[in-house]
Amino acid sequence: MNDPSLALERTEVRPDIALAERLFTELRHQTSDTRGITRMSYGPGEEIAHAIVRREAEALGLGTETDAACNQYMTLPGQTNAPGIVIGSHLDSVPKGGNFDGAAGVLMGLSVISGLVAADRVPPWPITVMAIRAEESAWFSASYIGSRAAFGRLTAQELDTVVRAGDGVTLRQAIATAGGHVDDVALGGGHLAPEDVAVFLEPHIEQGPVLALKDLPLGIATNIRGSLRFRRAACRGAYAHSGTTPRDVRRDAVLAVSQLVTELDRLWRRFQAQAKDLTVTVGEIATDAEEASFSKVAGLVRFSLDVRSDSVASLDEFAIELKAMAAAIESDRNVSFDFGPRTSTTPARMHPAVIAGLRQAADEARQPVLDMPCGAGHDAATFAGLSVPTGMLLLRNENGSHNPHEHMDISDFSVGAEVLMRFCLSPPDIPK
Amino acid sequence: MNDPSLALERTEVRPDIALAERLFTELRHQTSDTRGITRMSYGPGEEIAHAIVRREAEALGLGTETDAACNQYMTLPGQTNAPGIVIGSHLDSVPKGGNFDGAAGVLMGLSVISGLVAADRVPPWPITVMAIRAEESAWFSASYIGSRAAFGRLTAQELDTVVRAGDGVTLRQAIATAGGHVDDVALGGGHLAPEDVAVFLEPHIEQGPVLALKDLPLGIATNIRGSLRFRRAACRGAYAHSGTTPRDVRRDAVLAVSQLVTELDRLWRRFQAQAKDLTVTVGEIATDAEEASFSKVAGLVRFSLDVRSDSVASLDEFAIELKAMAAAIESDRNVSFDFGPRTSTTPARMHPAVIAGLRQAADEARQPVLDMPCGAGHDAATFAGLSVPTGMLLLRNENGSHNPHEHMDISDFSVGAEVLMRFCLSPPDIPK
Repeated sequence: MNDPSLALERTEVRPDIALAERLFTELRHQTSDTRGITRMSYGPGEEIAHAIVRREAEALGLGTETDAACNQYMTLPGQTNAPGIVIGSHLDSVPKGGNFDGAAGVLMGLSVISGLVAADRVPPWPITVMAIRAEESAWFSASYIGSRAAFGRLTAQELDTVVRAGDGVTLRQAIATAGGHVDDVALGGGHLAPEDVAVFLEPHIEQGPVLALKDLPLGIATNIRGSLRFRRAACRGAYAHSGTTPRDVRRDAVLAVSQLVTELDRLWRRFQAQAKDLTVTVGEIATDAEEASFSKVAGLVRFSLDVRSDSVASLDEFAIELKAMAAAIESDRNVSFDFGPRTSTTPARMHPAVIAGLRQAADEARQPVLDMPCGAGHDAATFAGLSVPTGMLLLRNENGSHNPHEHMDISDFSVGAEVLMRFCLSPPDIPK
Repeated sequence: MNDPSLALERTEVRPDIALAERLFTELRHQTSDTRGITRMSYGPGEEIAHAIVRREAEALGLGTETDAACNQYMTLPGQTNAPGIVIGSHLDSVPKGGNFDGAAGVLMGLSVISGLVAADRVPPWPITVMAIRAEESAWFSASYIGSRAAFGRLTAQELDTVVRAGDGVTLRQAIATAGGHVDDVALGGGHLAPEDVAVFLEPHIEQGPVLALKDLPLGIATNIRGSLRFRRAACRGAYAHSGTTPRDVRRDAVLAVSQLVTELDRLWRRFQAQAKDLTVTVGEIATDAEEASFSKVAGLVRFSLDVRSDSVASLDEFAIELKAMAAAIESDRNVSFDFGPRTSTTPARMHPAVIAGLRQAADEARQPVLDMPCGAGHDAATFAGLSVPTGMLLLRNENGSHNPHEHMDISDFSVGAEVLMRFCLSPPDIPK
């Protein structure tokens, strides 16, 4: 093979940024809600997005396939039939979210392929853009639904028990309604096998402020944090009159949960001091709307807890500390904690050879990049968990994600697409 | 006058407990809801209760009057026309409350009068039973509506701006609908003048567990705690992704409020160590149901704060500490607190001569009583605030109040009524 560092220059192959801009506009136009963007998993907005990218893939002459769970695969053949690169991301969004979370990865893949097609360039390996279903767990409280289904790793039990927020539709019904073959999903026959994917790459907007704070357009994920989640925790005490109940006989659920929250923050600081990766978030808290009153000690508080780390050991250590803290507060304050169902995802390491290949591509493009952990869950974690060599490109985003104000400059997208193009033209050497 | 300690024995005058039992049953029957008792201020349940006691007062041959705000006065003449005793309490209840909170005081007054009437006994002073309107601030967020109106102390502004929870009816409309003369209320012409009431006495169930814990049927209030209330406080931070937002750039409203709550608890302990009377309650707390999510740092928390003390100085000191704490947390955590409208009631001291008279009556009845602060607000605070010699008898209650399970043994009520009868027959000597 010729010197790959000269690959772009020689033929002037460039990602098709105009295509991406056109599709971002079309997506925004067709999936806007009153305040932002809504593309419900296996619902109307996601369907629209999948139809748009299918139409584009067909216009580009790509081979298209859809699996039993309605993930789409759009492939440009390479110089060999060996396992190729899959560039994938999801097309659903949270309710009232932004236009770029998920979609940017798919459109970046298409913009690279469109550039190759326009230059009549056959890449060294097959390039598949994968439009993944149902990644946003705001809809179904299960992680990585589409990517797990692609590998036959969605369980029949999940299909029947996981229901969509808002309309209560089961995952089984939702997939069937979208035209999927839900019995095949349940049987666990996947469309992909790990050994068929040489590299999985997920470009995605950053969902935090780190790149913006560092004034850099691009990051390379070193790992994806795993999580430990209690979405429906509760603390029970006893309702009592606020003015007449002495301090020592109170069973105050607000005070108990407040103490837990502040102690968890101290625990986070301790982990941080020990250089253990962690985030701790109590995002939801509420006394009972019917029973609570400003003049009553609260007998019930419901709350959520989301803990993330790049290390299974840290998550396990946190869980042990949490249990001990809750037990101490229960005994101190005569309340009881019920953390409810625990869901979790496993931390995932990005592959060193993929990280190195991305860094080399960025160097060649003379783009500074930041190596950084990725705190949000992504389908890339599914691939990495199955030992597929996996990487993520992160794009600067000023305003956080999962809100209508998330922001991506098309110039940053363009930088990312150029790095991705170079990577596609210079497959890294992955040791067995 | 003859030896008052022999008054009851001599004539065998006894409170009419059967009347009280009959009326408790009738009240429960007519004002039950699905789970407890509901007697809405100036609403159907309160109207029913007023009609029942009016009927009984007429059957006893008492003089009855109704003031502009629909408070009722039922009077048994005494041996003189000098200012007499007013035995008063309210007939409304919180939503889904219990049968005894408020009503017990009115029925105890009627049972004493019925006993006197049955014995054909003319008391040394006029005895008025006052059925007071709208004491429960669960309905209208203003304190002591009926008793303040009785003295012409309800403002025209309150009439127009205070609305009822649930149906949004203004206080003005509510009083008018109940048949009141709302323009007279607005003009501030009261039915009562402080100098016309020799003693105001409010029998009431205890709203805390203290008597039950001490195994005593009866308490004598030494004072009524005043309050400092922020019913609609809020803390604003910034929504952010739970997994990707570093600790040091978070603006976490849940953590900020949790810290405030735990620090307020520490402040309470400090006051307690200094023997300063205080209660501190955050009874309501909630992230925004629309915006918050388990996977987002919370940008908004709404909460309530109810602080009570028998001392104005302690409430003032608390308010200063609260402000300083909130400012420190705002600066630490990059959030902002908005405590919203502040409402307050003034602590009230019960009159030493009334306390002494009640204790003497209890001693004569050979009933042990506990001197205790009263943590809940009561109409007695209005009378005490206007320098009417005021007292409260508290009745043991196992299960707290403002809930369907509040409990009063009729035998405890009977003990209270006997003490009240003795007090009515032996007016205390009140120094000018």
